[in-house]
Amino acid sequence: MIHRLTLSDVLAEHARSRPRVTAVVDGEVRLTYPELDERVTRLADALAARGVTAGERVMWLGRNGHAVLELLLASSRLGAIFCPANWRQSTDELSFVVDDLTPKVVVWEQSEAAAPLSDDGWILAGEGYEAFLSSGSPAARREGTADALPGDPTGARPGPLTDGAAHPAEPDGPLTGEAAHPAEPGGPLTGEAAHPAEPGDDTLPVLALYTAAFDGRPNAALLSSAALVAHSTALLVVRQMEDGFTFLNNGPLFHVGTMMFCLATLQIGGTNVFTPAFDAEEVCRLIDAEKVTQAFLFGQMIDAVTEANRDGKYDLTSLRFVSHSAEWDAMTTVDDSPWCRSKMGGYGQTEVGGMLTFLGLAPGAAGFAGRPSPLVQVRLLSSDGSEVPSGEVGEICARGKSLFSGYFNRPELNAEKTRGGWHHTGDLGRREPDGTITFIGPRLRMIKSGNENIYPAEVERALKTHPAIADAAVIGVPDDRWHQAVKAVVVLKGEATAEDVVEHVRTRLASYKKPRHVDFVEAIPKKGFTPDYDALDAAHGGGGYPGS
Amino acid sequence: MIHRLTLSDVLAEHARSRPRVTAVVDGEVRLTYPELDERVTRLADALAARGVTAGERVMWLGRNGHAVLELLLASSRLGAIFCPANWRQSTDELSFVVDDLTPKVVVWEQSEAAAPLSDDGWILAGEGYEAFLSSGSPAARREGTADALPGDPTGARPGPLTDGAAHPAEPDGPLTGEAAHPAEPGGPLTGEAAHPAEPGDDTLPVLALYTAAFDGRPNAALLSSAALVAHSTALLVVRQMEDGFTFLNNGPLFHVGTMMFCLATLQIGGTNVFTPAFDAEEVCRLIDAEKVTQAFLFGQMIDAVTEANRDGKYDLTSLRFVSHSAEWDAMTTVDDSPWCRSKMGGYGQTEVGGMLTFLGLAPGAAGFAGRPSPLVQVRLLSSDGSEVPSGEVGEICARGKSLFSGYFNRPELNAEKTRGGWHHTGDLGRREPDGTITFIGPRLRMIKSGNENIYPAEVERALKTHPAIADAAVIGVPDDRWHQAVKAVVVLKGEATAEDVVEHVRTRLASYKKPRHVDFVEAIPKKGFTPDYDALDAAHGGGGYPGS
Repeated sequence: MIHRLTLSDVLAEHARSRPRVTAVVDGEVRLTYPELDERVTRLADALAARGVTAGERVMWLGRNGHAVLELLLASSRLGAIFCPANWRQSTDELSFVVDDLTPKVVVWEQSEAAAPLSDDGWILAGEGYEAFLSSGSPAARREGTADALPGDPTGARPGPLTDGAAHPAEPDGPLTGEAAHPAEPGGPLTGEAAHPAEPGDDTLPVLALYTAAFDGRPNAALLSSAALVAHSTALLVVRQMEDGFTFLNNGPLFHVGTMMFCLATLQIGGTNVFTPAFDAEEVCRLIDAEKVTQAFLFGQMIDAVTEANRDGKYDLTSLRFVSHSAEWDAMTTVDDSPWCRSKMGGYGQTEVGGMLTFLGLAPGAAGFAGRPSPLVQVRLLSSDGSEVPSGEVGEICARGKSLFSGYFNRPELNAEKTRGGWHHTGDLGRREPDGTITFIGPRLRMIKSGNENIYPAEVERALKTHPAIADAAVIGVPDDRWHQAVKAVVVLKGEATAEDVVEHVRTRLASYKKPRHVDFVEAIPKKGFTPDYDALDAAHGGGGYPGS
Repeated sequence: MIHRLTLSDVLAEHARSRPRVTAVVDGEVRLTYPELDERVTRLADALAARGVTAGERVMWLGRNGHAVLELLLASSRLGAIFCPANWRQSTDELSFVVDDLTPKVVVWEQSEAAAPLSDDGWILAGEGYEAFLSSGSPAARREGTADALPGDPTGARPGPLTDGAAHPAEPDGPLTGEAAHPAEPGGPLTGEAAHPAEPGDDTLPVLALYTAAFDGRPNAALLSSAALVAHSTALLVVRQMEDGFTFLNNGPLFHVGTMMFCLATLQIGGTNVFTPAFDAEEVCRLIDAEKVTQAFLFGQMIDAVTEANRDGKYDLTSLRFVSHSAEWDAMTTVDDSPWCRSKMGGYGQTEVGGMLTFLGLAPGAAGFAGRPSPLVQVRLLSSDGSEVPSGEVGEICARGKSLFSGYFNRPELNAEKTRGGWHHTGDLGRREPDGTITFIGPRLRMIKSGNENIYPAEVERALKTHPAIADAAVIGVPDDRWHQAVKAVVVLKGEATAEDVVEHVRTRLASYKKPRHVDFVEAIPKKGFTPDYDALDAAHGGGGYPGS
């Protein structure tokens, strides 16, 4: 255990090394690192009293807030797995996720999305969350050992809480389907038949983020503390994050894009500021008030913030950002770190912890995805597993310190994705003569609408549950506003209008996944068992919808 | 294996991602990353043909040069352990190290130090090294798989070389004492009785650096690829190293201080420039010619370089360095990274991979060792293992990603040093109210002479091998030039002069460890079984020689 560094350990160290630093700002809530550490200890105790042990899942159903970080850190303290669910999902999607992940505890906000779900045994966020957290007995902590963990050989194991009146009921119903899904988080990836449930083991999964629907259903990518710490450190290198870094969490924390900066900010002992969702005026106010170094801002969001501060009401000079427009550059500080120096970004996905390659590591690169993080290896492989020569297209495959531990409860998919000891990203790329990487596109077709990835298989599966639909295929068509829009090509076996078809999907999936166009046909052209998307694009699309 | 990243993997990735970048400069030798990768593959093949397998040791006996990096990387490719020995040692010291580490192969330079040693079966550096490297058959490599490793499931295992005529002899004599020292590199630290010898496992030790003589003999600290990669990444963060970083290896590579920057430069895909030893004029020439970003320079060395370039003959502006003097600052570029912003450094030791804490992570800190690396935890523990309160002195204890894997073949010392799951550094420190750490001094007494650490126990052991010496103790006394000088307090049982005593030690240990003063006494004052150093200091020292 001499080499361990869990997220909980990172917090415990900051509580010692940064006793006066503000860790969290969320509305009226301001917490120093020792205060956050103390709350996380109580929260872990409260979760443990609910039966959360190593390998169990804890879910958050709600918008951004410090509860997300606290629940993640408390889960780390117990060796448990935390999942911030996508609150933009439909009730059916949320129900799938709950059934799939079988969390022991769900903490949720009352909201449009979550309201229809049963709250039987769940913990209501807001005052309910605070009451729950307070049920973690401070007496269970030992003096002078901020990181005394349940199960940690160096710490006393707190017993079950005796004042269990506050939340005596074990969650039940569909939440406790433990028998059906014995916890084998890493699946075949770990190669260890009986992984000992040692909370301090930083190779245990600690974060579950639902992602790409490869087989028509979302999968929970599991990330260990070791992987998250490694990814954070790579971000510290490329973004040149330092003591005092302050990140505004205005993007959704169920996406790795915001979560990765939240965790890198934790890693360097900086300050995480939370706001429920993007609001240009509120973003300006928070940047000014909290001296924010970086926020989750892109394209139109930057323009909206620029517009909101047109009168210069807010001081945004603390924000160190990539150059965007003369107006924006004048009200912020143009940053010279590799991350910001030219174009931000690179290539990434949830399964690699966030970013796999960085533009900032390849100044003047030929390939617009840049070069791999210092903590990973990348190879471009052909379908037979051999490395393709420079200049040819292959599947982007990776291994290294930041990679995920597989999908929760998907042993077959995990074996397929990690064949040969390399993670197969499902995306295509090319190595340029200068060694940099060009991202080509998904190996399986995917629709990009707004900033969202829409997987045809998922929408097709929803369409086919309609009693009047015999067959269906989905493509992307050009759209001025969203880049691509979803078009459904449908074969009927009964009566249904285009409106019926759209409404059927809208009630089952996130609204952005619903078709905006419906064409009715006699038959779907096929290649083997799968739709012939090139033929569909020629006949119904015309946008050269993502080639493979 | 999806999470592995050995030093060999780092090299293989750079060969793909940085095909045109210069990896190594050493005199007339210039190697790109693909060229270095190809040489390392041949060297690994040549070592494998000599019987080097996972866990075996490979030793370098000579000054700085690219051979050091190549041998380290080739050892990583095989899962073997590489040790760059201290060439400033005496013949007796070198013999001890060879007997202790039992290397399978020793590569050495003819030099004053190494000449007296038998060269039976050893590989002579220079032309001999090149011939040896060339004996690694290029045919053993597969096309398109630069990282095909012996024993790697993804690579063909190259068989023994058939053209073995060049170096047919197995090394023999005292080098192959395998039976006496079965390879259990991590000792009790790994907790795995039978560590599988899998070359791609990045938790295997790959580097052995001899360090502190806790029990009167030097010990080889073992560092794994995972620890070295983690430490490098922490340096990348604090030093803000970027693509194009060029490091001049002018300090000794058997010390972690130079090795850690060599490896961080490798990690970011920069350029390592080697020079045999410090020479102010040559350092100037190399900085100018190779556009060096950083060199291993401190205090008097900086003054010497400033003096050598007083006429401005060399352009040193590529060097990004800490502010030192007006003259120095004018001829270099004052760097703004946390590493350089105020005072360089922090607290470190070989056993933590180099640096444990950084001043750069604690701007304006109360404690002059700064704050821990983002990849470790630090606690200050009392002798009973409990954490001492802020403001009180305790032993600096650590765990985290960059920590060593124990000492080679020292199971009892390893168990002692890692009790409770924390590495006990042997040094004392104090946590300040702002959470930063002050380094107090070694828990065991140690003499600081020049920049060298001298452990009394080691010198005492050497003294006691003299036939006329019945007992001896060693203390530090104030010295204008060296800060402290070694004084021997000796009890005779026969005839010996002070000159005899000094000469006896000089022929057995590095010259700087020899006593500069000798006092003869009737008896050494003791506390239990050990000398009473306070009484000795009062009677023979007067410098308040290191308190405990």
